[in-house]
Amino acid sequence: MLRLAIIGYGYWGPNLLRNFSACEGATVAAVVDRRQERLNAAKRLYPAVEVYASAEEVMKDPSIDAVVVATPVFSHFPLASEALSRGKHVLLEKPMTTSSAHATELIELAQKKNLTLMVDHTFLYTGAVKRIKDIVGMGVIGKLQYFDSVRINLGLFNPEVNVVWDLAPHDISILLHINEEMPESIVATGISHTHNSIENIAYITLNYQSNLIAHFHCSWSSPVKIRKILIGGSNKMIMFDDVEPSEKLRIYDTSYKVSPVSDEDKYNILVDYRLGDIFVPRVGQEEALSGVAKDFISAIKNGTEPVSNWKNGLGVVKVLEAAEKSIKARGREVKI
Amino acid sequence: MLRLAIIGYGYWGPNLLRNFSACEGATVAAVVDRRQERLNAAKRLYPAVEVYASAEEVMKDPSIDAVVVATPVFSHFPLASEALSRGKHVLLEKPMTTSSAHATELIELAQKKNLTLMVDHTFLYTGAVKRIKDIVGMGVIGKLQYFDSVRINLGLFNPEVNVVWDLAPHDISILLHINEEMPESIVATGISHTHNSIENIAYITLNYQSNLIAHFHCSWSSPVKIRKILIGGSNKMIMFDDVEPSEKLRIYDTSYKVSPVSDEDKYNILVDYRLGDIFVPRVGQEEALSGVAKDFISAIKNGTEPVSNWKNGLGVVKVLEAAEKSIKARGREVKI
Amino acid sequence: MLRLAIIGYGYWGPNLLRNFSACEGATVAAVVDRRQERLNAAKRLYPAVEVYASAEEVMKDPSIDAVVVATPVFSHFPLASEALSRGKHVLLEKPMTTSSAHATELIELAQKKNLTLMVDHTFLYTGAVKRIKDIVGMGVIGKLQYFDSVRINLGLFNPEVNVVWDLAPHDISILLHINEEMPESIVATGISHTHNSIENIAYITLNYQSNLIAHFHCSWSSPVKIRKILIGGSNKMIMFDDVEPSEKLRIYDTSYKVSPVSDEDKYNILVDYRLGDIFVPRVGQEEALSGVAKDFISAIKNGTEPVSNWKNGLGVVKVLEAAEKSIKARGREVKI
Amino acid sequence: MLRLAIIGYGYWGPNLLRNFSACEGATVAAVVDRRQERLNAAKRLYPAVEVYASAEEVMKDPSIDAVVVATPVFSHFPLASEALSRGKHVLLEKPMTTSSAHATELIELAQKKNLTLMVDHTFLYTGAVKRIKDIVGMGVIGKLQYFDSVRINLGLFNPEVNVVWDLAPHDISILLHINEEMPESIVATGISHTHNSIENIAYITLNYQSNLIAHFHCSWSSPVKIRKILIGGSNKMIMFDDVEPSEKLRIYDTSYKVSPVSDEDKYNILVDYRLGDIFVPRVGQEEALSGVAKDFISAIKNGTEPVSNWKNGLGVVKVLEAAEKSIKARGREVKI
Repeated sequence: MLRLAIIGYGYWGPNLLRNFSACEGATVAAVVDRRQERLNAAKRLYPAVEVYASAEEVMKDPSIDAVVVATPVFSHFPLASEALSRGKHVLLEKPMTTSSAHATELIELAQKKNLTLMVDHTFLYTGAVKRIKDIVGMGVIGKLQYFDSVRINLGLFNPEVNVVWDLAPHDISILLHINEEMPESIVATGISHTHNSIENIAYITLNYQSNLIAHFHCSWSSPVKIRKILIGGSNKMIMFDDVEPSEKLRIYDTSYKVSPVSDEDKYNILVDYRLGDIFVPRVGQEEALSGVAKDFISAIKNGTEPVSNWKNGLGVVKVLEAAEKSIKARGREVKI
Repeated sequence: MLRLAIIGYGYWGPNLLRNFSACEGATVAAVVDRRQERLNAAKRLYPAVEVYASAEEVMKDPSIDAVVVATPVFSHFPLASEALSRGKHVLLEKPMTTSSAHATELIELAQKKNLTLMVDHTFLYTGAVKRIKDIVGMGVIGKLQYFDSVRINLGLFNPEVNVVWDLAPHDISILLHINEEMPESIVATGISHTHNSIENIAYITLNYQSNLIAHFHCSWSSPVKIRKILIGGSNKMIMFDDVEPSEKLRIYDTSYKVSPVSDEDKYNILVDYRLGDIFVPRVGQEEALSGVAKDFISAIKNGTEPVSNWKNGLGVVKVLEAAEKSIKARGREVKI
Repeated sequence: MLRLAIIGYGYWGPNLLRNFSACEGATVAAVVDRRQERLNAAKRLYPAVEVYASAEEVMKDPSIDAVVVATPVFSHFPLASEALSRGKHVLLEKPMTTSSAHATELIELAQKKNLTLMVDHTFLYTGAVKRIKDIVGMGVIGKLQYFDSVRINLGLFNPEVNVVWDLAPHDISILLHINEEMPESIVATGISHTHNSIENIAYITLNYQSNLIAHFHCSWSSPVKIRKILIGGSNKMIMFDDVEPSEKLRIYDTSYKVSPVSDEDKYNILVDYRLGDIFVPRVGQEEALSGVAKDFISAIKNGTEPVSNWKNGLGVVKVLEAAEKSIKARGREVKI
Repeated sequence: MLRLAIIGYGYWGPNLLRNFSACEGATVAAVVDRRQERLNAAKRLYPAVEVYASAEEVMKDPSIDAVVVATPVFSHFPLASEALSRGKHVLLEKPMTTSSAHATELIELAQKKNLTLMVDHTFLYTGAVKRIKDIVGMGVIGKLQYFDSVRINLGLFNPEVNVVWDLAPHDISILLHINEEMPESIVATGISHTHNSIENIAYITLNYQSNLIAHFHCSWSSPVKIRKILIGGSNKMIMFDDVEPSEKLRIYDTSYKVSPVSDEDKYNILVDYRLGDIFVPRVGQEEALSGVAKDFISAIKNGTEPVSNWKNGLGVVKVLEAAEKSIKARGREVKI
C-alpha cells in the first residue's frame, strides 16, 4: 500500500483528498497546511488522516512514499526538491515551477533517483481531451494548422501570479499533449487593470517551424465564462467548448478553397454560416482527477510514464516563461 | 435629384444598386464594371441604368454628382482622387485606401473642394452597433477596459490582400466609432497557409495610453463562422455575437473583485458559469446599407458629417498599416 | 410560355410574384387584389404585369393558363372551382380549403379536367424537409414512433381562423410527406384569450393504427419564436429546429433500453444530458418557394405529380377539420 | 436532536443521507433497504448509521422522530400510515401516493396526530423555481394565461409506473406552487412503445375556470434531455430551461396585439425572431435537496408549514389520477 501526503489543502485540496482516497493500492496518510481551519476541514471528512501544520514531519517520515504538492507555485521547487532528495515520488500541481531552470533541476533529480515526477495537468485526463488526442492522432483533421484557445474566467484575480501563469497552463498542456513539437518563438501582449501590475488579460502567439500557429487569450476580467479551443487541420476543425454541458466537442468538415470564386458564390459564402457537416461525438463524463490519481499511482508502481509527464510540464513552463518575457518587452519576439 | 454612379459591380454591387435606387432624392444613373456579364446583370434588374466598361465616361460626365467606389482597394485612391478633382462626392468601400498617406491626400482634397468623402463601414449602421454606441456613450458599462474581437470567415481566401485588410476593418471601425481615441502602438502576428505568403490568420493587439487594450483575431480558415466582440468596462460587459439570429447583444453585470476570497468561494466561482444578471436588448433589424445610402445622400445635400466619416476611415487604415508592418516584423511593436 | 395570374397580393404576394417571375417557361401576366395600394406595389416592382381589382377578368381570359390563389382560405374553394371549370391549373395557398368536402370536390374536378391542382405547402421544398424525407425514407431512424411539433409565433393573432388552421398546416404537411399513413383519430384541446373565441393556443394528438403518435403544439401567444420538430424512430431521432440559423437538423443516436438498470446507472443517466453521438448534416439553403414555383410549372408542362400534391393537401384539411371538432368538444376523440 | 430514519436507499438515497446528515438539529439514525449491498453502501459513507433490512425496527423504535420514505410509490401509503400512527413525522418522495384517496387519508391522520406530513417535490426548492414564484407573485408577468412544460428524459423506462407518474409530478408541483388554483378538468393522451402497456410518451391538458391552460409533455423516448417550461402572462413570459447551465430563466417582454396589422408588418413579424427585450436573472445555485431537508426539520421543530406541503402533494396526485384516467379513455375529458 502506497502512503501519500498532500501538502497544501486549499480550494483544490478536497478534490485531491477524495480522489486519492478512492484509489486502490494507495492511502492518503497525511495532509499538510499552515491553516488550522483547513486541517480541521480535512479531518472532518477523513478522520483517519494525519494532519500537520508544516511539511517537515512528512518529509522526514520514511513511510511516506509520495507527496502531492498543492501549494502556491513559488514553493513547488523547494518542496519537490526536498521530497525527491528524500526518495519520495512527487506530483506537482500546475504549473510545475516558476522557471524552466527549476523544472529541469527537478527532472534531473528525479531521473537520477529513479523517481516518478508528474504534473497535475488535469485536463489531459478529461474525456474531451482524450478524444481530441485520438482524433488528431488518427489523422482525422489532417495536418495541424492552428490552435486557438480562449479561456476567460469569472473575475477571480490571483494576487500572486499573472493571468498567463494562472490560466494558460491548461491550454498549453493540451496543445503540447496533442502535438509535442515545441514552438520556435513567442510574441505576447497583456495589460493590468489593477494597481499591482499583475496582468489580468493577455494574448500569446506561438510561432512554429512547421506551418502551425497557436494563440492563447487568457482573461480574468469577464462576467461570463468562455472556454473554447479551435484546432484546425487541413481537412477538419475541432471545436472544444468546455462550457457546453453536453456538446463539448464538435468536428467540422472543412472544404475551403483558395481558388477564385464567382461574385455570386462569394456573396453566398459571406451570408452563409458554415460549410460541411458537423459531428458531435459523445464524450466520457468520468472525473478527470480520478484519472490523474490512478496514473500517478500506476507510474510509481509499474514505472510507466504518466500521460501528464515531466516533458509536458517542462514545456508548459518554458512557454509561460517566454510569454511573460515578451509581455514585459511589449511584444518582442522571444525565442524558445 | 442627385445623380450617382456605382464604379465596380462585384458581389456587393447589387446591394449598393438596390439601396441607392430606393433612396429618395437620388438616382443611380450609371454602373461601371469591366466585365460585360456584370453589366448585363445590373441592366436586367434596373433597365433604366446606364452601364459602362470603364469609369472614364462617368468621370467626364458633369451631371454625375457623386460616385460610389466598390472596386478592389488598390484602385480606390486613383478613382477617388479623380472624382474629387472633378467635383464629385465620393463614397469608398472599406477599407478606404491601401495607405494612410493616400487617405490623408484624399481627405485634404475633399476638404479643399468642400466635398463629401465617406467610407462604407456598413457595420456602423447596424441596429446592434448603434445600440452599443448608445450604451457605451451613456456610461452604462463604465470605463472601457478591453475590446476583444473574433471574426472568422468561411474559408474565403482573398488573393489580393491579407486577412487583416479583408476582415479587420469591420471591427476596427466599430472600435473607433465607440471610442475615438487612437491606440499608441500595435503588436501583431500572423501566418500564411498558402503559397502566396498572404496571411490567412492574424492576431492584433492595440495598446492605449488610457488603460484600454484591444485585440482582433481574424481568420479565413474556419468551416464555421464566428463573429463575436466583447466590450468590457469597469461595470458591465457587452457581448456582441453577430451570428446569433435574435440575441446579438447581451449586457452582463460585472461584479468581480480583486480582494482575496476564501477557498470555498474560489471553488464555487471556478465551477460557476457567470456572475450577475444579463440583459438582452431588442435590436433594430433594418438593413444597414440603407442607412449608409441615406447618410451619404444627406451629407451631400445638407453638409452634415456622416456617421462613417473620414476620420474613422483614416483611423482604420492607420491601424491596418501598422498591424501589417508588425506582422512582417514578427510582432515588433509599431507606434502609430 | 405559360401565363399565370396571382389572385391575392397580401404579405406573401411579393414572394410569389418574384419567384414565379424568375421561373423559366412561365410569366406572371396578371395580379389581382381588391386593394389599389397592393396593386400599385406589384406594378412598381414589375411594370409589365397587368393588375386587376377583381378575379373576373383573369377567369374570363383564355390566355391565362394557371392561377395562384393567395387569398383568405374561405375564398379558395369558389376561386379554384371557377378556375378549374374554365380549364386553368390551380396552385392554392395552404391550407387547401376550409373543409375536406370542398377539397374533395376540387380534386374530382381537377381529375376530370386533367388539370394540375397543387397546394403551396412551402416547407416541403426546404432543404431541411427534403433531407428529413431522405433520412426517414432510407430507414436511418428505424420504425417511426413519434412526431412532436412545437410551432409558436410572435403574437400575430389571425382574426379569421384559429391557430390550428393558421399554423398547424405546416407541420401536418411535413408529417404526411414523410409518412403517408393517415391517423385513426384525433384528440385536441385549445383556448382563446381574446373576446372573439378564436383559439390562440392549441394542442393536437394524432393516434395511429401503427404504433405512432403525433402531437402538435400551436400558439400565437409567445414573445419568442419556437419551431421545433422531434421525429423519433426505433434507432435514431431527428431534431428539426427551424429557428437555428446553421444547425437546423440534428440526428441523435438512440440507445435507451427498457431493461432494469442499477441505481448508480440510473443516477448517472438522470444527471446526464444525452446518449450517443450527434450528426449535424449540412442542409441546402435554396429558397423553398422557388422550388414550389418550378414544381408547379413542371407539373403543368410534363404532367408530373408535384411534391406538394393534392393528397397531402386533402390530408392536411382532414386533420385540421377533426382537430377543430375535437377542440370544440373539449377533447372528445374524433375518428378520421 | 431529531432522529430520522431513511426508508429505501435507491438511487436518490445517497443524496437524502448526505443532506439530512448535514442538517443542524437532526441526525440520520437509521437506513432501511431490503438489499444488503445498498445497506453496505450507506454504511461505508456513514459508519455511524444503523442499517436494517426491513422498516419494522424503525417503526417500533420510539426514539425515531421522523421517517423519510424513498421506496417505490405503491408502498408510500402503508409505510406513511404506520409511521404516522406511531407518532412519527413523515417526508414522502414524490409522488405522494398512488391515489388521492390514500393521500387524503394520510393527511387526515397527520392532522389528527398533529404531525408534519410533507412531500419531497425537490424542484420547489431550486433557485430557479423560487425566483419564478417571486416573479409571478409580484405580478411581473401579469395575468397567467398558459403554462407549457416539456420534460423528456434519456430513455430511462420505469417498469412500475407510466411516464405521467414518473415525470409529470415535477412540473405539476411547480404549477400548483406558483398558482394554487386547481384545474376544472383534464384531457390526456399517450402511447406505449413497449410490450407492457406502460405509456412512455404522454400529453396532458389542464383546463381551468380562469382563462388559464396548462399542458405537459412527458417522454422517456428521447436521446437528448429537454426540460423546458413556458409560463405566459398578459405582460411577460418566463422561459425556464433546466438543461441550460447558466441561463435557466429568461423573462421576455410580450407585446403582441390582436389588432390588424399591415401586410408589410405581418411579413416582418413572420421573419423576425422575437419581440421586446429579454432579462436573464442570475439564479441561486444552492442544492435544492438541502432546502427540502431544512424545511422538513423546521416544520417539525417549529410547526411551520413547509413549502412543499400536503396540499401541493395531494393536488399533484389528483391531477395524475385524472390524467391516467383520461389516457385510458382515449382523451375523454375527466373532471377533477
